[in-house]
Amino acid sequence: MQKTMVPGYAYGSAELPRSPVGLEELDRLKATVMFTRDDAEALRLAGDVLEDQVEDVLDVWYGFVADHPHLLAYFSTPDGQPIQAYLDRARQRFGRWILDTCRRPYDRSWLDYQEEIALRHTHEKKNTADGVDSVDNIPLRHVIAFIYPITATVRPFLARKGHSAEQVEAMYQAWFKAVTLQVALWSRPYVRDGDW
Amino acid sequence: MQKTMVPGYAYGSAELPRSPVGLEELDRLKATVMFTRDDAEALRLAGDVLEDQVEDVLDVWYGFVADHPHLLAYFSTPDGQPIQAYLDRARQRFGRWILDTCRRPYDRSWLDYQEEIALRHTHEKKNTADGVDSVDNIPLRHVIAFIYPITATVRPFLARKGHSAEQVEAMYQAWFKAVTLQVALWSRPYVRDGDW
Repeated sequence: MQKTMVPGYAYGSAELPRSPVGLEELDRLKATVMFTRDDAEALRLAGDVLEDQVEDVLDVWYGFVADHPHLLAYFSTPDGQPIQAYLDRARQRFGRWILDTCRRPYDRSWLDYQEEIALRHTHEKKNTADGVDSVDNIPLRHVIAFIYPITATVRPFLARKGHSAEQVEAMYQAWFKAVTLQVALWSRPYVRDGDW
Repeated sequence: MQKTMVPGYAYGSAELPRSPVGLEELDRLKATVMFTRDDAEALRLAGDVLEDQVEDVLDVWYGFVADHPHLLAYFSTPDGQPIQAYLDRARQRFGRWILDTCRRPYDRSWLDYQEEIALRHTHEKKNTADGVDSVDNIPLRHVIAFIYPITATVRPFLARKGHSAEQVEAMYQAWFKAVTLQVALWSRPYVRDGDW
């Protein structure tokens, strides 16, 4: 795991509020996305495969965002000026998120940080980790829609280190499940009480 | 397109309320899930491939639901008794949904029916199309999590009609995009005003 200081990265911090989601509910969500121990293992392999390609993955994601004004808007001022310092700081956290998705145990600390990430997409906490004056919300519909690009664009990188087609497929499916699981968790603060 | 009467199926009905989602926003969502004309074409091919396998796909999905009490609960009474008539009626609509996903143009009528499907997952309209006494909500987190099984389980069926690996992959990716797009739309009535 990269040890460099990442701005606003607070995984495991005692100051984080605890997620209201319990481990039993996490088990049910894992069952719905068909996530098993084999997936956790495939993700650990994916972490090794992606470790020295993280910047290349981020180049693809940031290129995709930059090409779409409605996505770049989430890193911009309300009148549409991209905030470079915000893009740069979030980028470092995205990099850690890739490796955390592969390597962290999906336990209480992980759930707590998923809740923090969730809140940082909403008006409750967006911009606060970086002290920026950007729009105050990423609409949930685009957070959900992002499941596709965040999943599909990773596949070529998983195939780049000489693993068998079967191993690449296992890593890809595990990644898809893990992304979907996290977006399900990130939807929580958007939803009316009782409907989440 | 199958012409048999499907209970509760109301695609194109003049009685449906219009979706509050506009075609411009649909275009933005399509861009976020990377959906292009090639995907629409790949889905039309998928419709031909899946047409006579719909019941087999549904067997897989219903088997998956039946194996997971927390999913079967959404088709059950509040005290946990599965409602067979509800399962049967919804199954016919699922079958139509598979073909609609492949064959319908994603236009105003399609958006309106996505909104109807969305509402039928929530306490606003769940159970009303079938007049059943089931739980009154499918939690959004499991609707999102369902993106994975609804996507992944379709792949073997796409490969069963002798198409090239490239065609199967194109159909699969288009299906994945279409499912993600629809779940993004289905999240709308769950979300606080302004945050969707």
